[in-house]
Formats: sequence, C-alpha cells, structure tokens
Amino acid sequence: MMTDTKNVQVGFVGLGIMGQSMAGHLLKAGHPLHLFNRTRSSAEALVARGAVWHETVGAMAAASDFVISMVGYPADVEAIYLGAGGIIGSARGGTVLIDMTTSSPDLAKKIAAAAQQRGLLALDAPVSGGDIGAREARLSIMVGGDQLAFEKALPLLQLMGGNVVLQGGPGAGQHTKMCNQIVIASTMLGVCEGLAYAQRSGLDPQTVLQSIGSGAASSFALNNLGLRILKNDFAPGFFIEHFVKDMGIALSEARRMNLDLPGLTLASQLYQQLVTLGYARNGTQALFKHYES
Amino acid sequence: MMTDTKNVQVGFVGLGIMGQSMAGHLLKAGHPLHLFNRTRSSAEALVARGAVWHETVGAMAAASDFVISMVGYPADVEAIYLGAGGIIGSARGGTVLIDMTTSSPDLAKKIAAAAQQRGLLALDAPVSGGDIGAREARLSIMVGGDQLAFEKALPLLQLMGGNVVLQGGPGAGQHTKMCNQIVIASTMLGVCEGLAYAQRSGLDPQTVLQSIGSGAASSFALNNLGLRILKNDFAPGFFIEHFVKDMGIALSEARRMNLDLPGLTLASQLYQQLVTLGYARNGTQALFKHYES
Repeated sequence: MMTDTKNVQVGFVGLGIMGQSMAGHLLKAGHPLHLFNRTRSSAEALVARGAVWHETVGAMAAASDFVISMVGYPADVEAIYLGAGGIIGSARGGTVLIDMTTSSPDLAKKIAAAAQQRGLLALDAPVSGGDIGAREARLSIMVGGDQLAFEKALPLLQLMGGNVVLQGGPGAGQHTKMCNQIVIASTMLGVCEGLAYAQRSGLDPQTVLQSIGSGAASSFALNNLGLRILKNDFAPGFFIEHFVKDMGIALSEARRMNLDLPGLTLASQLYQQLVTLGYARNGTQALFKHYES
Repeated sequence: MMTDTKNVQVGFVGLGIMGQSMAGHLLKAGHPLHLFNRTRSSAEALVARGAVWHETVGAMAAASDFVISMVGYPADVEAIYLGAGGIIGSARGGTVLIDMTTSSPDLAKKIAAAAQQRGLLALDAPVSGGDIGAREARLSIMVGGDQLAFEKALPLLQLMGGNVVLQGGPGAGQHTKMCNQIVIASTMLGVCEGLAYAQRSGLDPQTVLQSIGSGAASSFALNNLGLRILKNDFAPGFFIEHFVKDMGIALSEARRMNLDLPGLTLASQLYQQLVTLGYARNGTQALFKHYES
C-alpha cells in the first residue's frame, strides 16, 4: 500500500490513445508524473494538468522511481530501454521499470537481465482491454518478472487495471499476451465466417445473433465486434496493423518452440492481405472485408 | 397458448441422449407422447412413464398432431420423412412436423415442400446447448418455416428451449445452426492454440485463464471447454463425429453459395484427422490433442 503518492515519482513514455488514459489515472491519483514522448504535442493535456515534460527519455527516467512505457513496436521498446541515453543507462538504482507495450518475450528477458545488472527492477506488463479499458481503468494487466518488483508495482498497476495477475518470471507477461492474441485471432475467423455465411444465405444476421449470441458460439468478439460488423462500423478499437505485429511475435515464438499453429498462421495471412489492401488503420473486425464479395 | 395439453398428441422419433431429455419435458407437461426409435430399449424409460410405443415411424406419425424428430444424419432425416411408410406419407392433414436434427438446409426445404403438398406443416428447428441444455430445457432453438407453423409449435418448443427464434422460411433454422457451428469451429482453433502456446511456453494455463478469460479473448468455449482441456477431460459434451458432420454440411452449403471459409475448412480438416486417429467419440475439446507433442 502506498501511503503518500506525492512521494512516488512516476515516469511515463508513450502517450498514444491508451498511454494518455493510463498516465492520466496516475496523475489523478496524486503521483508526480514525468513525461517523454516522440511527439511533444501528445503530452500537452497532461502537462496542463501538472505533469512535467522532459526533453529526453533518459532525463525522464532519471527523475522517476517507476518508469512505465507504452510504445509501439519491439524496436521502439529496445531503443528506449537499451539504446544510448536510454532508460536502463539513466535510471537511478532501485527504480522499477514497467514495459506495458505488447512486445517480444525475448526482449523482455533481455531488458530484465540488463536492468538487474544495474540494480534496477523490471517487469513486462502488457495489457488487454483496448482504449475503453484504458479509459475506465479496467485493463487486464499480464505481468512477468519477480515477485518483489510485482509487489512494488502493484499499487500503480491497480490504478490502471482491474485484473492484474503475475504470470511468472521475465517474459511471462508477454507470453500471456500472446496467448490472448492467439485465442482472439481464430475467434475472429469464426465470427467473420459465421456472419458472412448468415448474410450470404439470406438470413438476417441480427436475428441470427439472437439465436447464437448467448450459447456455445458466444464470445466477446461475437457480441461486440460482430455487432460492429453488422452496423458496417470498421473504426478501430484495435488497429489491424498492431494486431499483425502481435501475431508476428506469436508466430515467431511458436516457431522457436516448435509449435505449429495453423489457425494463427491463417488469421495472420488474411490480416496481412487486408494491410496490403489498405485496411491497416481499420479495427480488427474489418477481417469481415475478406469475406465480402 | 395451449389450454389442454392432454388433447395434443405429440410424436417423437430419435431418443438419443438429447432426444430423451426433450421428449421427457413434453411428457412431464402432460402431452400424450407417441414414440418410435431405431432401438426400442432407448424408449423404455419414457414408456414406463406413460409414453406409447409404436412399431413403425408411420404409425407414430399417424397418431400425432405434432411430430418431432431428433435423429443422427441427414440420410436418417430423409428416410423417416420421405421414405416409404415415412412421416409425410403417414401423418394426418394439418399435422405439424418439426425436425430438430442438425441437417441440411436443402433437405429442410424439400421436406417442407413435400409436407405442403400433403396439407402438412413443416419446420426445421435444430438446437444448440448440448445434453445439459436439453436436460434443463434451456436449448437455443433456431426455427425455419412459416409463421403459422411456428406459432402452432411455439408452446411445444418452449417446453424444450429457453431461446426459441424464428429465423425465416424453410431451411433458415438449419442455416442458422450452420452459422453457430461455423463460429464455434474457428473459436475452438483459437482456444486450443492459445492453451497449447501457454503450456509450451512454460506458463501455468490456469493462471493464464485468470488474465484472458474475461476480456477480449473470452468465449463460452474458452471458459468451458478450455477448463475441461486443462483438467485433461475429453469426455463428450458434443461428439467430434457429429461436429464433423455439421461442418461438412456447412462447407457444402458455403461452396454452393460461392463463399470461401478458410477457417472452417482448416478446422474441419483437423477434426477429420482426429477422427482418423480414433477420437470420433471424444468431445470437441479434444481438438487440443492436435497440438500436443
């Protein structure tokens, strides 16, 4: 339990849609908040609420007891943590580093090892729940790292998430997120194929959902993204290009483990085709476009 | 609304695990029940409760105001309805025929047309919900046929199901059931692949479910069949061999509609391999066997 949030300095890098909401919860709870971001304009709203802007990621890290990152790709994670002037080289001893980006389990292990060498603690803590989950502080946060670091970080994580679970050592959070994405990938195939069949066979897909939306076929995807499909709403809750990144990491990890995942392979191929066709910035439910004639 | 169930004679053919529960609800509600089944022994418990056994499907049909069938394969449906001495040739004018078998939409249309010619009403009304849904009268019943027949049958259907929806004309019930199975097929791929990845990467799959079981990856399949997989419980809620039949019908309909369903195609192939390996009488969650090394 943190008794005085004013004494706990929190750094945050990566102020996309989700990062802004997450950092906002930390600020609201009373934490002094130190920001760095590739584009400064994304920090302005938080700075207006009292957050401190830093000109480099290293300066942000040096000012913080906890550093939280929520950036785009594994290459970005590697650069901010391990690059010259990066977080690991700049943070004070004892600082807890929390990467909440969906990234590779291997990189999480590499960061944890480098952090340990410098007397820092590191957690990988990717999330599920999308923009809405971030806004409402109801994210599922899947954590990898050691118990001590987890316990130190838990009060902060609970400000952003409703379901915070330590899954194992370094990389276990990322592996768990891969499980999540693997399940979603083929579930999306099922949702889109079922609705495409409904449409093509002349049924009313809305009425079909009344029959199949609450039984053995039911899923979050069917009842949420399925409904958006039927409204022709392909706006992003989660971008196809980010999902393609995640599936790429999962496939590469699966190959390394000698695990053949044909459903994931298929979903990844279809989503990549959609990127080629210009749907990268659509929501994942735009997989349905593949089935439209 | 039926005011006196004692005057409504109901015939029932197909006393498998589900059929027995369903027929039992009709009997319990006070309907005189007329039975025929390929093996007489399956009728004995219901006969002991007052149901009447008939030596032929035609005799059963001739004694009934409503005829309900819940048999195995489309070939069985065709034989009992359209074969010599079958239901359509034997039923009295005005009888309502309700096929609750999962069967082909085309056959449902053929039966409806033949029924109309003889002054009978016909519905296709396949179900979802499995043995438990049948036992607890909570089946989802997906109905195809005309409104009048639906209204006549509704009080009976509501004795067996919790969610009875008219989906359209003849065949629409079967098409809706195909949507249900198509969604489930790829969802099962996702569940099994996600759990296989969890296991292979050294995570505790039970703990993984704590993180992913209530968010964007959540589904009935993940939270029910996924749990059975983790308990090494591959006992049938729904037999693989029946699921293979259903996917075969769906694929053949999809081909006819010029609709390519790669997820369904993949799932159907993997399930067929499991049949070859001797898993036909396992539950659908045994798809997980495909991913075990």
